[in-house]
Amino acid sequence: MLAVAVLAAGKGTRMKSTLPKVLQQLGGRSLIERVLDIPDALSVQPTDLYVDRKLVIVGYGSDLVRQTLSDRTDIEFVEQAQQLGTGHAIQQLIEPLADFSGDLVVLTGDTPLLRPETVQNLIAFHQKQGAAATVLTAMLSDPTGYGRVFCNQAMQIERIIEHRDCNTAQRQNRRVSTGVYCFRWSDLAQALPKLTTDNDQKEYYLTQVFDFMQPVMAVDIDDYEESFGINDRIQLAHAYQVLQTRTREKWMREGVTMILPETITIEDTVELAPNVVLEPHTHLRGNTRIASGAQIGPSSLITNSEIGENCRVVFSVVEDSQIGADCRVGPYAHIRGESHVGDRCRIGNFVELKKAHLGDRTNAAHLSYLGDAKIGNRVNIGAGTITANYDGFQKHQTTIGDRSKTGSNSVLVAPITLGENVNVAAGSIVTGNIEANSLAIARSRQVVKPDYYDEQGRKKNP
Amino acid sequence: MLAVAVLAAGKGTRMKSTLPKVLQQLGGRSLIERVLDIPDALSVQPTDLYVDRKLVIVGYGSDLVRQTLSDRTDIEFVEQAQQLGTGHAIQQLIEPLADFSGDLVVLTGDTPLLRPETVQNLIAFHQKQGAAATVLTAMLSDPTGYGRVFCNQAMQIERIIEHRDCNTAQRQNRRVSTGVYCFRWSDLAQALPKLTTDNDQKEYYLTQVFDFMQPVMAVDIDDYEESFGINDRIQLAHAYQVLQTRTREKWMREGVTMILPETITIEDTVELAPNVVLEPHTHLRGNTRIASGAQIGPSSLITNSEIGENCRVVFSVVEDSQIGADCRVGPYAHIRGESHVGDRCRIGNFVELKKAHLGDRTNAAHLSYLGDAKIGNRVNIGAGTITANYDGFQKHQTTIGDRSKTGSNSVLVAPITLGENVNVAAGSIVTGNIEANSLAIARSRQVVKPDYYDEQGRKKNP
Amino acid sequence: MLAVAVLAAGKGTRMKSTLPKVLQQLGGRSLIERVLDIPDALSVQPTDLYVDRKLVIVGYGSDLVRQTLSDRTDIEFVEQAQQLGTGHAIQQLIEPLADFSGDLVVLTGDTPLLRPETVQNLIAFHQKQGAAATVLTAMLSDPTGYGRVFCNQAMQIERIIEHRDCNTAQRQNRRVSTGVYCFRWSDLAQALPKLTTDNDQKEYYLTQVFDFMQPVMAVDIDDYEESFGINDRIQLAHAYQVLQTRTREKWMREGVTMILPETITIEDTVELAPNVVLEPHTHLRGNTRIASGAQIGPSSLITNSEIGENCRVVFSVVEDSQIGADCRVGPYAHIRGESHVGDRCRIGNFVELKKAHLGDRTNAAHLSYLGDAKIGNRVNIGAGTITANYDGFQKHQTTIGDRSKTGSNSVLVAPITLGENVNVAAGSIVTGNIEANSLAIARSRQVVKPDYYDEQGRKKNP
Repeated sequence: MLAVAVLAAGKGTRMKSTLPKVLQQLGGRSLIERVLDIPDALSVQPTDLYVDRKLVIVGYGSDLVRQTLSDRTDIEFVEQAQQLGTGHAIQQLIEPLADFSGDLVVLTGDTPLLRPETVQNLIAFHQKQGAAATVLTAMLSDPTGYGRVFCNQAMQIERIIEHRDCNTAQRQNRRVSTGVYCFRWSDLAQALPKLTTDNDQKEYYLTQVFDFMQPVMAVDIDDYEESFGINDRIQLAHAYQVLQTRTREKWMREGVTMILPETITIEDTVELAPNVVLEPHTHLRGNTRIASGAQIGPSSLITNSEIGENCRVVFSVVEDSQIGADCRVGPYAHIRGESHVGDRCRIGNFVELKKAHLGDRTNAAHLSYLGDAKIGNRVNIGAGTITANYDGFQKHQTTIGDRSKTGSNSVLVAPITLGENVNVAAGSIVTGNIEANSLAIARSRQVVKPDYYDEQGRKKNP
Repeated sequence: MLAVAVLAAGKGTRMKSTLPKVLQQLGGRSLIERVLDIPDALSVQPTDLYVDRKLVIVGYGSDLVRQTLSDRTDIEFVEQAQQLGTGHAIQQLIEPLADFSGDLVVLTGDTPLLRPETVQNLIAFHQKQGAAATVLTAMLSDPTGYGRVFCNQAMQIERIIEHRDCNTAQRQNRRVSTGVYCFRWSDLAQALPKLTTDNDQKEYYLTQVFDFMQPVMAVDIDDYEESFGINDRIQLAHAYQVLQTRTREKWMREGVTMILPETITIEDTVELAPNVVLEPHTHLRGNTRIASGAQIGPSSLITNSEIGENCRVVFSVVEDSQIGADCRVGPYAHIRGESHVGDRCRIGNFVELKKAHLGDRTNAAHLSYLGDAKIGNRVNIGAGTITANYDGFQKHQTTIGDRSKTGSNSVLVAPITLGENVNVAAGSIVTGNIEANSLAIARSRQVVKPDYYDEQGRKKNP
Repeated sequence: MLAVAVLAAGKGTRMKSTLPKVLQQLGGRSLIERVLDIPDALSVQPTDLYVDRKLVIVGYGSDLVRQTLSDRTDIEFVEQAQQLGTGHAIQQLIEPLADFSGDLVVLTGDTPLLRPETVQNLIAFHQKQGAAATVLTAMLSDPTGYGRVFCNQAMQIERIIEHRDCNTAQRQNRRVSTGVYCFRWSDLAQALPKLTTDNDQKEYYLTQVFDFMQPVMAVDIDDYEESFGINDRIQLAHAYQVLQTRTREKWMREGVTMILPETITIEDTVELAPNVVLEPHTHLRGNTRIASGAQIGPSSLITNSEIGENCRVVFSVVEDSQIGADCRVGPYAHIRGESHVGDRCRIGNFVELKKAHLGDRTNAAHLSYLGDAKIGNRVNIGAGTITANYDGFQKHQTTIGDRSKTGSNSVLVAPITLGENVNVAAGSIVTGNIEANSLAIARSRQVVKPDYYDEQGRKKNP
């Protein structure tokens, strides 16, 4: 049997936030959700590490934490009413785990860079060694300020000495505790009641249990950056950069080209095909999929959208939409609201699509708003065309048939239907349906008043 | 008594600029202005470090330097007609400081990263030690090329040896001079006339005064990066990044979240509330204030503007304007010219506001230009609406009452006033005032010519 | 006589691409094209290093490589049908170089960071030493995994030992081979047939030739980063950053100011004047020239264009166009298609120019599309003006004379000519030519229906 407990009761004062620390967002998800990926990943991997119990120890802002995780029925919340130290937090597990037997892994809710594989190694080592407790340790390049962990050759911990109590030789030891542990629960449950607050902070330290357990082992983490804890927003930004580097490198290894990758962000939920090119300052979010040969950016934001093969999207924003193959989008296009663009379309500068469905080879190249519109194939939307979809009370639909054309600065007042092969003259305000193969005009005849201005552009006969 | 002199006479040849080096811009301010922050900060801090005399030694382009600082009546300019070395520069102070007694701090105009606290420490150490001169020194990780400063245990300087004259053991010494000094002026004034040009460069070196003063002390800077001098534009870019890192970290500690902070710039004059979120590629300049909960970016530029609580500004440019609470701006909006947007407004894509005053809950969601306009509450500006505010000679005002609506591609020819609850039909060119509760139409009836085109879209009867 | 051979036969599996590795793009050019810059540069420099023979050894995707380089008549392609190792690759040269005498330089097609000066140094050292072969070596900070090169004082190579075969002392040696060599061809031609596949990989290693040549020398590269080889897209991105750093620093030394240079990219073909300022997130591509005092960015893309003195281009895209002096462009402007903008013009937000020729002091400040247009001096293009240049079949020309003005939301239906000093009223759809000094109106009179709406904005008498 395996249980995982996550420490999530802290306020995180240095965040300067009303949210409890574990609810801070990191790349679109909260810290606690990221840490809970670890027991989730353990259980699905082909190991015998199925996690039987998942406990989250909450305290500060516990209502908010419970609410954030309310979809997860697999989690038991344990209330730590007062925050009297890490030992006190784990003491709260004595009752809920009264009839549990097996190992308990303790994680902290503010270390979202920890990899499931690392915890798996910790548990495997712990079980193989038959340890009462095992500490995940890290070799820091600069351990100044951290307590040092001293082990024998077999990685059995002999002493843990606070930095300030280390002599010069002891300070050469770069091994520190990461605050992640695996315990044999039966041993821990016996040790927990013996904790005291006999220390500087007058808190119950979890590490004091090692005085009552035997043997206590250590296992080093490969990449010490995984143990990075987040206490303020500088560290939050750093953790984000670390996660992004992992994601970027994963996709580059899969055949994605990136120009200035440090300026690009990609959420975990995004899928990229090989031979995608990401230009600088491009951000891919939500359920976004980019097909092979597509080139996105510079300076584009794609959210919850699909971009087809060989598309070129530059300086544009695409949200909740689908774009077919071989389209050219931008610069300065905005496609949103469940729009659907067919193949070989061109959506040009200063064009907004909102809930618009375009067929293949249809162009809207300049200065247009197409909202709540169903537009056929090979349609040409003239510059300045607007679908007047809103009457001040509700939205109405515009339908345009294949091969139709709208003139510059024309308005289609919805609800309205244009048949196939219709031509709307420039500047026309179209209010009624138009059947196929028709020309529609709604504008005034041109009147010219000659010799009206003098050389300075002033009226001659005011 | 305390005097501060700033060396600002150099050309800065490697800048490849016609400007004197100290006038190069760094984050919106010149180098010399940034260095002069130091005596300013000393005088306001709760210490007895009030700076009685501030002297700027000018030479190359001295007129430009004097002009740049012409608002500062607290500064005495000292002309160094020829540039014969740092010693020669300080020799120019003998006359202006003839009746001065007290300490003189010498700063260089090209080290804008130096912190006031550091200079304060230098002076305090100097005075406590009763030194004749004190050198601000730094421990460099790689001191290759720099002269080394050798001190005894009490930090009294015993020798300064040029890099090329150091033996292998001496080169292990990483302590170098930063070029910042504190002198007992009476001692310095006696030493300065003794300087010679008996050296490779045939220049008067200021450091030669140490031969005639006793004792000369050294005090190490905590962060050697502060002593970073700027000689070319690569170093200018580096210094900018250092200053920006300081500013970003300050705000992150105050509770501001930043995504990719290295891509964000924030001028010193900006104020941010806690729980502001800055997305990548965002730039905040001038007197800008962002209220709590607002989210700015990606790719936005806010200059001299106030953004209200919980606003969301994406891919937009805002200049010299105020935006109320809970507004959504962008992508691709441009708000400028002392515009004022109320609460809960939406300024959408391809919309420009110039000197526009909008009430609450008013929307301009698409493709509009609102210039010199006073617009009420709950107004809906249709896509493509334009205020024709310019008659080719001067600008005129547009006024729109509460709850009015303008149709798509309508034009309001200013000067013009629309009452409350007015509706302007799509495509209307409105030239006269409209009273409340009216419908205004200015467009032609639609004419349809059926069976006008063949299947290829060509006229049937040309 | 001098020959240069480039190894370009590999697939580059880790690229996850159908292209052969040497055709991967790096900053707008393929790897192989960049490597071929080296023999090109050698031949033009004032040395006696004219390269008589340039050989490219192709294999995987050889047709594509030949095609990419088809313009270069100076190159001999040598086919390596099977890829049996670097020794096997060079064996393919025995026949084509049968009657060659002189030195052969061997380069690899995946090290695009190597500088011509470095290869020049290699050859000079090789010839001065009278070596049979000379290896370009590098001192790595972390040589783990690389074979170590052991030399005597005279830089004659004594042994090369694979990493795994090094003892602890030998592993301290940080000198490794870069894979770049200079050979006396007559000696190499005799050694090549003696190669065996008697090794772990069962391949012909080129380094085995050193067993049969005497003396073999080593010369260290100054900057080991030059030897960086590209095997996957992470390394491709890193190499791009290295090249960009070189380019940025070159231009900063020439007097260009850059804000956040790491976010800026500049192709090799770009020319910048001193005192240009590049704001963050700016990208300069192709044959672009920026004149002195111009300020570009933030967030702009300039391709194949000329920007005049003191121009200010912000948040804009300019392609294949020329902009005169003292213009202000953007934010959110798009200038393309061989447009030409005169001096002191203003191209404002949401304005597209396509094949437009503007005179001096002409403004198009808001929401306009000017395509296939010839526009004079001091013209004011009103907001929402559109040149209707496309009739669905072909493009037509618009001509506008000096000092003319177009009203808001006006349309000029091309082909059309407006004389000088013409005024087009707001909302007019102009279909016929207009002579000078005329007022043109094409719109309907305004009709107002008072008392039409109730307080909720609903029709009173529906």
